[in-house]
Amino acid sequence: MKNKKPLTIVKIGGNIIDSPTDLKQFIIDFSKIKGDKILVHGGGKSATKMAENLGIKPQIIDGRRITDASMLDIVVMVYAGQINKSIVAQLQANKINAIGFSGADGNSIQSEKRSHPTIDYGFVGDIKIVNTELISGLLSLQITPVFCAITHNSKGQLLNTNADTIASELAIALSNVFDVTLNYCFEKKGVLTNLEDENSVLKTINLELYNKLKYQNALHSGMIPKLDNCFYGLTNGVTKIKIGHHSMLLNESILYTRITL
Amino acid sequence: MKNKKPLTIVKIGGNIIDSPTDLKQFIIDFSKIKGDKILVHGGGKSATKMAENLGIKPQIIDGRRITDASMLDIVVMVYAGQINKSIVAQLQANKINAIGFSGADGNSIQSEKRSHPTIDYGFVGDIKIVNTELISGLLSLQITPVFCAITHNSKGQLLNTNADTIASELAIALSNVFDVTLNYCFEKKGVLTNLEDENSVLKTINLELYNKLKYQNALHSGMIPKLDNCFYGLTNGVTKIKIGHHSMLLNESILYTRITL
Repeated sequence: MKNKKPLTIVKIGGNIIDSPTDLKQFIIDFSKIKGDKILVHGGGKSATKMAENLGIKPQIIDGRRITDASMLDIVVMVYAGQINKSIVAQLQANKINAIGFSGADGNSIQSEKRSHPTIDYGFVGDIKIVNTELISGLLSLQITPVFCAITHNSKGQLLNTNADTIASELAIALSNVFDVTLNYCFEKKGVLTNLEDENSVLKTINLELYNKLKYQNALHSGMIPKLDNCFYGLTNGVTKIKIGHHSMLLNESILYTRITL
Repeated sequence: MKNKKPLTIVKIGGNIIDSPTDLKQFIIDFSKIKGDKILVHGGGKSATKMAENLGIKPQIIDGRRITDASMLDIVVMVYAGQINKSIVAQLQANKINAIGFSGADGNSIQSEKRSHPTIDYGFVGDIKIVNTELISGLLSLQITPVFCAITHNSKGQLLNTNADTIASELAIALSNVFDVTLNYCFEKKGVLTNLEDENSVLKTINLELYNKLKYQNALHSGMIPKLDNCFYGLTNGVTKIKIGHHSMLLNESILYTRITL
């Protein structure tokens, strides 16, 4: 592992994207990260808002959006168009040579339409192949890839894929070549033990503690798929995973949660 | 010129994009073009339709869309999101390793907000710099760039730029490195002398004939900026420019209009 080049992967979530001020500050911080880096972004409330404006009602089951054809059109527009290009333009203004990617671009992330015995997820893609050769090649040219939460099945169909999962699958695939640190950034300071107390941040959480807290119903429901992604990443080669506010990217002394096995 | 590698640039317009069947056939044809190639696409009626659906009224003066902030949001979503990603996914299905680009991606096309003494064009960008190094580098990796009609000012602002102009500016800039053939594809067979007769295609049009026909009001108004772009390209290094139906891309014997000086 010691001979591998470091790579920082940062995933940003909804609340950063929905606030132009927070996004601007995040981009300034992200731009200061030294060395190879990749940004993965979700969609925030923009897609839901766009659907409302167009009179389309989004369906959500178990915290996951059901992507019918109209909703797929909207998430492609909003994630790969509006949000991705706005982030890329702002990174360029900060002298980071970013290129925005859906999984279709450069065949970077190939997925398969999810099949489930009872739930119809619609146009949702589970990741099959990450094109590490292309991504490593771009990184070696000092290009910073910016991934939105859209993949493709390589047969012409775009698919909606959870951004947390994209971040962990990229981290795992690129761990073959890089020493990867994966950062899940959101509005909180980390994994909280008391949801009422913003400062009740766990410094570390391992699989044993995670299972205990899950059993006690002590974790925010939105945190569970995120932590599942983290443990999945750690058991598949990712060196380091952190959850917290994006201020942790430049300041190691700040409060955040380190995920360990 | 003889030592330069050939490069085919194809611009497709609205009517191809608005018809899924035509677009599918175009993509099959485009995929068969041998050697290095670049695709540039406009937006068709999708942006206007999206604006209508969102209750935003588009303004058009002298055939050009006035891009206010709401309309810029829409064209970024529709051009760089919906249309660009759909084309990229379909090219991938045809084994073409495409990457979609706005001018912000890879700082590929830098523009400047248009300033005009009497008309406020809004967020419209006039092209200043094409990043030929990046584009040549991608082409050498057998990547096919797909450009939408969005550029950026390198200060974080996305701008709307006419797709015909993007095609001619790319062709001019890349003529330093490549022997460029620029193809403007649309629903007609070429430049018509009689607008009522689909087969009245001029085999060639030079600057002298162009000026004569323009003076006689014998050209479709939409053809004038297109031809201006062509002559601008030819006087600035582009080897060959053709206007016609996309079937000309694979069949030299088909009727089309060749632009000459």
